[in-house]
Amino acid sequence: MMVTPTPADKFSFGLWTVGWQGRDPFGDATRAELDAVEAVHRLAELGAYGLSFHDDDLFPFGAPAAERGRRIELLRKALAETGMVVPMVTTNLFTHPVFKDGGFTSNDRAVRRFALRKVLRNVELAAELGARTYVLWGGREGAEYDSAKDVRAALDRYRESLNMLTDFVRDRGYDLRFAIEPKPNEPRGDILLPTLGHALAFITTLEHPELVGVNPEVGHEQMAGLNFAHGIAQALWQGKLFHIDLNGQRGIKYDQDLVFGHGDLMNAFSLVDLLENGGPNGEPAYDGPRHFDYKPSRTEDMSGVWDSAAANMRTYLLLKERARAFRADPEVQQALSAAGVGDLRTPTLAAGEGYADLLADADGFDPDRAGERGYGFVRLNQLALEHLLGAR
Amino acid sequence: MMVTPTPADKFSFGLWTVGWQGRDPFGDATRAELDAVEAVHRLAELGAYGLSFHDDDLFPFGAPAAERGRRIELLRKALAETGMVVPMVTTNLFTHPVFKDGGFTSNDRAVRRFALRKVLRNVELAAELGARTYVLWGGREGAEYDSAKDVRAALDRYRESLNMLTDFVRDRGYDLRFAIEPKPNEPRGDILLPTLGHALAFITTLEHPELVGVNPEVGHEQMAGLNFAHGIAQALWQGKLFHIDLNGQRGIKYDQDLVFGHGDLMNAFSLVDLLENGGPNGEPAYDGPRHFDYKPSRTEDMSGVWDSAAANMRTYLLLKERARAFRADPEVQQALSAAGVGDLRTPTLAAGEGYADLLADADGFDPDRAGERGYGFVRLNQLALEHLLGAR
Amino acid sequence: MMVTPTPADKFSFGLWTVGWQGRDPFGDATRAELDAVEAVHRLAELGAYGLSFHDDDLFPFGAPAAERGRRIELLRKALAETGMVVPMVTTNLFTHPVFKDGGFTSNDRAVRRFALRKVLRNVELAAELGARTYVLWGGREGAEYDSAKDVRAALDRYRESLNMLTDFVRDRGYDLRFAIEPKPNEPRGDILLPTLGHALAFITTLEHPELVGVNPEVGHEQMAGLNFAHGIAQALWQGKLFHIDLNGQRGIKYDQDLVFGHGDLMNAFSLVDLLENGGPNGEPAYDGPRHFDYKPSRTEDMSGVWDSAAANMRTYLLLKERARAFRADPEVQQALSAAGVGDLRTPTLAAGEGYADLLADADGFDPDRAGERGYGFVRLNQLALEHLLGAR
Amino acid sequence: MMVTPTPADKFSFGLWTVGWQGRDPFGDATRAELDAVEAVHRLAELGAYGLSFHDDDLFPFGAPAAERGRRIELLRKALAETGMVVPMVTTNLFTHPVFKDGGFTSNDRAVRRFALRKVLRNVELAAELGARTYVLWGGREGAEYDSAKDVRAALDRYRESLNMLTDFVRDRGYDLRFAIEPKPNEPRGDILLPTLGHALAFITTLEHPELVGVNPEVGHEQMAGLNFAHGIAQALWQGKLFHIDLNGQRGIKYDQDLVFGHGDLMNAFSLVDLLENGGPNGEPAYDGPRHFDYKPSRTEDMSGVWDSAAANMRTYLLLKERARAFRADPEVQQALSAAGVGDLRTPTLAAGEGYADLLADADGFDPDRAGERGYGFVRLNQLALEHLLGAR
Repeated sequence: MMVTPTPADKFSFGLWTVGWQGRDPFGDATRAELDAVEAVHRLAELGAYGLSFHDDDLFPFGAPAAERGRRIELLRKALAETGMVVPMVTTNLFTHPVFKDGGFTSNDRAVRRFALRKVLRNVELAAELGARTYVLWGGREGAEYDSAKDVRAALDRYRESLNMLTDFVRDRGYDLRFAIEPKPNEPRGDILLPTLGHALAFITTLEHPELVGVNPEVGHEQMAGLNFAHGIAQALWQGKLFHIDLNGQRGIKYDQDLVFGHGDLMNAFSLVDLLENGGPNGEPAYDGPRHFDYKPSRTEDMSGVWDSAAANMRTYLLLKERARAFRADPEVQQALSAAGVGDLRTPTLAAGEGYADLLADADGFDPDRAGERGYGFVRLNQLALEHLLGAR
Repeated sequence: MMVTPTPADKFSFGLWTVGWQGRDPFGDATRAELDAVEAVHRLAELGAYGLSFHDDDLFPFGAPAAERGRRIELLRKALAETGMVVPMVTTNLFTHPVFKDGGFTSNDRAVRRFALRKVLRNVELAAELGARTYVLWGGREGAEYDSAKDVRAALDRYRESLNMLTDFVRDRGYDLRFAIEPKPNEPRGDILLPTLGHALAFITTLEHPELVGVNPEVGHEQMAGLNFAHGIAQALWQGKLFHIDLNGQRGIKYDQDLVFGHGDLMNAFSLVDLLENGGPNGEPAYDGPRHFDYKPSRTEDMSGVWDSAAANMRTYLLLKERARAFRADPEVQQALSAAGVGDLRTPTLAAGEGYADLLADADGFDPDRAGERGYGFVRLNQLALEHLLGAR
Repeated sequence: MMVTPTPADKFSFGLWTVGWQGRDPFGDATRAELDAVEAVHRLAELGAYGLSFHDDDLFPFGAPAAERGRRIELLRKALAETGMVVPMVTTNLFTHPVFKDGGFTSNDRAVRRFALRKVLRNVELAAELGARTYVLWGGREGAEYDSAKDVRAALDRYRESLNMLTDFVRDRGYDLRFAIEPKPNEPRGDILLPTLGHALAFITTLEHPELVGVNPEVGHEQMAGLNFAHGIAQALWQGKLFHIDLNGQRGIKYDQDLVFGHGDLMNAFSLVDLLENGGPNGEPAYDGPRHFDYKPSRTEDMSGVWDSAAANMRTYLLLKERARAFRADPEVQQALSAAGVGDLRTPTLAAGEGYADLLADADGFDPDRAGERGYGFVRLNQLALEHLLGAR
Repeated sequence: MMVTPTPADKFSFGLWTVGWQGRDPFGDATRAELDAVEAVHRLAELGAYGLSFHDDDLFPFGAPAAERGRRIELLRKALAETGMVVPMVTTNLFTHPVFKDGGFTSNDRAVRRFALRKVLRNVELAAELGARTYVLWGGREGAEYDSAKDVRAALDRYRESLNMLTDFVRDRGYDLRFAIEPKPNEPRGDILLPTLGHALAFITTLEHPELVGVNPEVGHEQMAGLNFAHGIAQALWQGKLFHIDLNGQRGIKYDQDLVFGHGDLMNAFSLVDLLENGGPNGEPAYDGPRHFDYKPSRTEDMSGVWDSAAANMRTYLLLKERARAFRADPEVQQALSAAGVGDLRTPTLAAGEGYADLLADADGFDPDRAGERGYGFVRLNQLALEHLLGAR
């Protein structure tokens, strides 16, 4: 099957993904550093349209202004040469020891202030580079021990930080929105805002909630055993899917960051179906970057790195094709109808009906008989599986 | 240690807890039905103050009005005799086959209408009995298969249902609020609003969010590997802890509903510390019912059932005593201070300070040096553990 | 794609699978009882070759001899009419309250004796019906509370029971072997012999280990987060894969018993590849029944039950076809070779070589250079995924 | 409560534990290197009796013989000065890139040979230092992708390696046994021999199984959701608990390596009770080192490191004291008796009884009546909990 990614597919990659050197909790780096310029060129050749990065991916932590500027110029040049864009930028608030108890919610106020300054400076750069989304992953905002963190105070500080950031972009007139990336644990024992649900709830408490959404990651929600496609549906329903991190995870364990589809394949199929066909009339439900946040396995050399980058895009496109065929199949449409899937869009109350009318309408409903209905969900799922397998 | 529960402790139990007959997915009932009147008397003797119930706990599904009325009168009489109250009532939308695909979000509209009628009638009863909280556990609102449920449509229907219910209590002038009880899975493969975070986010979309909060259950959040005390802190922070379900769970597995404390004991300690001492000045952070939603193990006879009911309350009181001593210990206070726990209440920005001032304040902060700080979190946790063990 | 099951495929089903009435921890039955005779006929029509059952599936617990005999005769007749066989039989030691603390390892000796008698009688029936495997699922052998079970004493009793059972079949001259089915939890908090590893280890302590193997179930191992195909490989390696239970599970949660493939699809593919092509020369590595132990979802009527039964077999055959193509693809063979997969069959020591020779051979190996090797595992996995998707 | 560790308690620590610098998957080191000599002195002062290490903890990977020798001499001197011993030694087969696909089971034969040489050399050192146990943690023996590893071939190579190692110690006359340390995942997606059950089963296939046992680690088994105390009981039952790694883990997630007791406290209590009081007459069931394999949290400075080391020992001794009191309490003894815990030691069959006698003994047993027995497990567990809390 021909599946060739093009910029129209809006595939983007973190610089830290193809650039990951393979350092893990028990092992040293297995690959050399990857130059950002080379990354831009290689990803462009493979069909990607965008590159994202943390400040410290592009220039070293604490780099003097000149060095910082030099690295940015090299990136700009590579972008210009390739037509690649920077749709998203983010901050590293986790690698340096100063962040060991967090950034925005560190128990040390001086650290919190330093973290905010680090973000502000990088937001400025993000806006200059034309990014439309600024991701906030609070991987160190949390605790191992319950007594060590006053969670309500931490949420106060988190909110204070977000409010300051939205003030900043509003005052500056940046066309930039923030996206919180939830994760339940690792590297902290428990991370604040552990799921997209917790993040969505938090956002409603902000001064400018319209400027803040979520950036859910496949593996992060699955590390809590949650259905990723369900979570994305809720984020879309609440108008908050500002960005998405695609990768693979094989169940509840450490964060694996596998290639997209190399984890729960059925749920990846459902996800692509939702993103690509989930609009009210079958159009895409999401039009932002299809962003891969994965790690090429430590066993791979650079050739394997590029193979893995290509694999992400190819798998996405294969699933998109399968999902299209699934939706187009008359037998699927019949099965969806038999299962009542579409009927759920019909309001439970008739137009103008209230509880009084509803209570008056009890007659004639026989729960025992209604309980005999077979929904045919297994058949429907089997049809999905067979489309996924390309067997129909 | 003397720990004797009294009504002032506000301990309440679901009728379905001590009344659980021990039917599980692989086994038949091991205990006879428990009469509601007996339950009220026994729980009162043990020191509880309240009883909660599902409609179908009190009178059989589909019971004629006379039978329903008779059972309610028996309950009223028992309450009067004992001084017990009914702080919370809820609906069974899960046992009968008609709810096999859910209640409010069933793919079958007639089922959705039936579910709403069932809830409305029971809300009326709840108000008559003086309940202040009406719990909604949507255990069947979900799916096993991704294609079988349009999650966004389901959330529309969920919202429609809640909006109708809040209209109802507002029109009737009931002093009653709703509390959504989240659960990630079981009996459905994936349940909608799987964590308290998802529920908190959903609530903000309602017409009367002030009337809807959450009823988190220890085991339900822990089935997603989440820190229950952290979740409760966020619910409190968002002003939404309307009710709480206390029990025990040993990790990510089926819903165990053990006695409170018979699961993750350290987190139970943190929870009680938060509930009892978590107010801004050390007063209780939560003043609602301490409600036990547990199942006396299937291996127990009725004598074991009452032992298990008493064990819930006794454990809670023991942990309350331990938490009080923990907070009062000067060494703990010193360790909390060294760890910066209280400093997190200090805003990151000074009064009147904005991002411009913050950016201008970079001088003098040395991240390498700040990164050398030891927070002493392990020592603090060991102090908590030793207080929990009664070893200090 | 044409995939029609035939008896040569050796597909078998538990009578309790298609016969499951949909009772779950929170819900009543949604389907009527299924007659065993009808089950035999319908499964035969669908292409299955075998039926397995628990004693209590076929005749009620405690049925008088006449009723027991009558039911057995009806089954025999149905088998004769259809050509179906009974490859495996097992015992229900979990539904009746008497087994609430287990069968072989109940803390009540009289219960242990009753359990053994129940098994002995059914082993006799199994042999009469020509079954070659007798499965032992110890679902109630365990505990919720650590102090409640002396695990070493329990293992003594487990061993005693198995030794008696192997004496029995040896004395009787039955051509029947036992297969232990491990499960980590549910319905007990912790079940003894929780994984196939623990069961394999236990078996080595028996008097007749050659008569006892394992019957691993997809979902049971996955409930512990373990790789099922890896586990099966170890069971094969130890010569102990006497039987297998195929189904689907979506991660670490309650026992879902979904249709085979409706869980972790990639691992299902690896499993079928191993079973069908895993022999030293590419022949099947396992030639026993492909036994489905699943539950048709509670949302299904009887039509959905038969659809779900067919789905199990169809998915297996589709995966078998995909695995065949995967193995035959020259690009896959090249990738396997590049990854060194086959090289692992070469002994690490040369013929006749000992540690002294090995130590003397250190020269010339440069670990830094050897560490640069890229194994190409991601590319290989992507090839597997694309074959699974039918995209090559 | 006075709990002061002494060498008689046999507490030992890995050099890599107090020496952990805090590098994690998302963060750089937060602490300086710790000198081995200082570690020995500080641990001795705190009351430990032993130090364990990987080769690369003591001298750098690839260190020339002179440097290696110098470091060993420094260690010997520190041991002599303090009276500390080296009860266990192990090999680092995971940090260097050469081991990215494993050591004994790497797909690269030259790597396998290198790994074996590395182990052999260090076994020699272990024997010279008087170690009695040599631990083998195969953290890199595994795969992320099912097609990438021929598990049966890998187990062949694992066995080949162990057989060579036992030949070596036998030929040399070393008084040294091997202990396999299982882990389900991390750093590999799936690790071979993922639980102690799988390792116990594997060991039975070796040429000298008597020389190989297991070294289970609290957190590793709990990462698979397994009951650690149950697993240890099976290891003891099979005579294979050669060593133990004590630490803390909060559920199924990444490997946390917390202080012992800072995870599942109830199970830690059960474990200590088993180890200390689990012999047939209440004497210790295990007399080897109580070895802590934990990581002082990354948030701690060196002062926190030593606090955390002390916390491990103090918690163990507190639990030991609690377990002693639990066993001595007459009410506990009565509850154990009522629960039938001791009865499980009585064989199910009478002396000389066989299945024929058992079958003949059916009369008089009434399963319905026997099913009414209440085991009082909840009460027993509550007694354990209250002893743990020091509340009795």
